[in-house]
Amino acid sequence: MTATDSGHELSITRYIQAPPETVYRIYTERTGEWWAPKPYATPIVEWDLRPGGRSQTVMKSPEGEDMPHEGVFLEVVPNERLVFTNAFTAGWNPQVLTGDGCDFAMVAIVTLEREGAGTRYTARVRHWDDAARKRHEEMGFHEGWGIVAHQLAELAEAEAEAKAPA
Amino acid sequence: MTATDSGHELSITRYIQAPPETVYRIYTERTGEWWAPKPYATPIVEWDLRPGGRSQTVMKSPEGEDMPHEGVFLEVVPNERLVFTNAFTAGWNPQVLTGDGCDFAMVAIVTLEREGAGTRYTARVRHWDDAARKRHEEMGFHEGWGIVAHQLAELAEAEAEAKAPA
Repeated sequence: MTATDSGHELSITRYIQAPPETVYRIYTERTGEWWAPKPYATPIVEWDLRPGGRSQTVMKSPEGEDMPHEGVFLEVVPNERLVFTNAFTAGWNPQVLTGDGCDFAMVAIVTLEREGAGTRYTARVRHWDDAARKRHEEMGFHEGWGIVAHQLAELAEAEAEAKAPA
Repeated sequence: MTATDSGHELSITRYIQAPPETVYRIYTERTGEWWAPKPYATPIVEWDLRPGGRSQTVMKSPEGEDMPHEGVFLEVVPNERLVFTNAFTAGWNPQVLTGDGCDFAMVAIVTLEREGAGTRYTARVRHWDDAARKRHEEMGFHEGWGIVAHQLAELAEAEAEAKAPA
């Protein structure tokens, strides 16, 4: 047996002018407001924030089409780090993805690092082969994850500003 | 996107005449003594028992051939439950297996349930497709996992007996 583990990674990073605690709270408690690039919406978010816990989101297109995504959390460190994958569904059932949309497995490592008065948000998304990485990139990874990072930042910064001393 | 998650499972179960605490201790602290079917040995066991922690074993054949296995733990509940997979290496790097031996991903769910004065040991091993399940079965899953369950049971039962009141 030989093994390869190069990661086939795509990543995005962004500075958010709000502390990690605020970003984490918006990330996990107001997920439906920023998860999908507008005008897409995310009417359903079922997150069980523990290793093995279910991660379900359903996005809705402006035309009303539902796009369900099932996965699990692998690591949860509040205010610091979330790792999740679609390689399993809850209960550690191996998941094989097929169809028109996302037909490949990935694992996402999201970190929130304190940087000055704000947060360095970084999302690293890894794939099992380079074909999947390329397909994900061509599907618009950088644009999509960039837009939703911006939406996340807007909510977190609005909350941080509202709480700042006058 | 559509998803399938049937599990493609192989499993084995065995009653062990020792309490779960003893079985868990032997499982995790004396791994090298039972992990490989004798006369194979397991000179290297590097286990970091937490979600995302490294699971490395190196088995050695009687002819001296090394067989390394890398993976991670997904869930660790002492005395009750261990879940591990070779779909990742430590650090959440997606792992693609190739070569002569085990060239497929799997996830193992090992449970220790108290049953009378002893333990019901069950190992469920799931695969991403039925071809892998079949290949694993043909490689001798039931024989191999059966032998090592027997080796685990012998060690646990010897310890439980040594500790029993006269």
